Amino acid sequence: MYIAMNRFKIKNGNEKDFENLWRNRETFLDKVEGFKKFNLIKGEKFEEYTLYASHSTWSSKNSFINWTKSEEFRNAHKNAGENRDLYLGHPQFEGFEVIL
Amino acid sequence: MYIAMNRFKIKNGNEKDFENLWRNRETFLDKVEGFKKFNLIKGEKFEEYTLYASHSTWSSKNSFINWTKSEEFRNAHKNAGENRDLYLGHPQFEGFEVIL
Repeated sequence: MYIAMNRFKIKNGNEKDFENLWRNRETFLDKVEGFKKFNLIKGEKFEEYTLYASHSTWSSKNSFINWTKSEEFRNAHKNAGENRDLYLGHPQFEGFEVIL
Repeated sequence: MYIAMNRFKIKNGNEKDFENLWRNRETFLDKVEGFKKFNLIKGEKFEEYTLYASHSTWSSKNSFINWTKSEEFRNAHKNAGENRDLYLGHPQFEGFEVIL
């Protein structure tokens, strides 16, 4: 099992807009081999931003990597450049192998 | 739903010892109200350390907070000070509300 997280710093005041982007987004993940689960999660609020993360679970690291090279991935990210003003800096990716 | 993560920097070469600590640890979590799932997850390897995180899922933030004040929590952490030489610095806690 593998957990893929992408961390987003959302400028204060833009939390609801950011959540609605994900709420209305077509991820095409259900069709992807090895995909198990997706969540959007909200972390701590700091002075300038609130930490969010996309949190997806996969049967293996390979299934995640294969997805990042797929047409489904390109379709899910084709509008990723819009709404840049919601963010402070770039998203930060972290991947984790499930050990126990 | 709530996800509690504690991030650990494990000095290179100590990965297996750290994993075995968790493998053999009695967490007493199964008895705790609101507890859903626990995983130990392994992230990127850096020059001096490998990132690990404990990753637990709870029915709510409150159930997690209540656990941190419980006897089960004290029992699970009574030996937490041992094996300090495995770590680079202190663990870093991050808690997340599940939004979607």
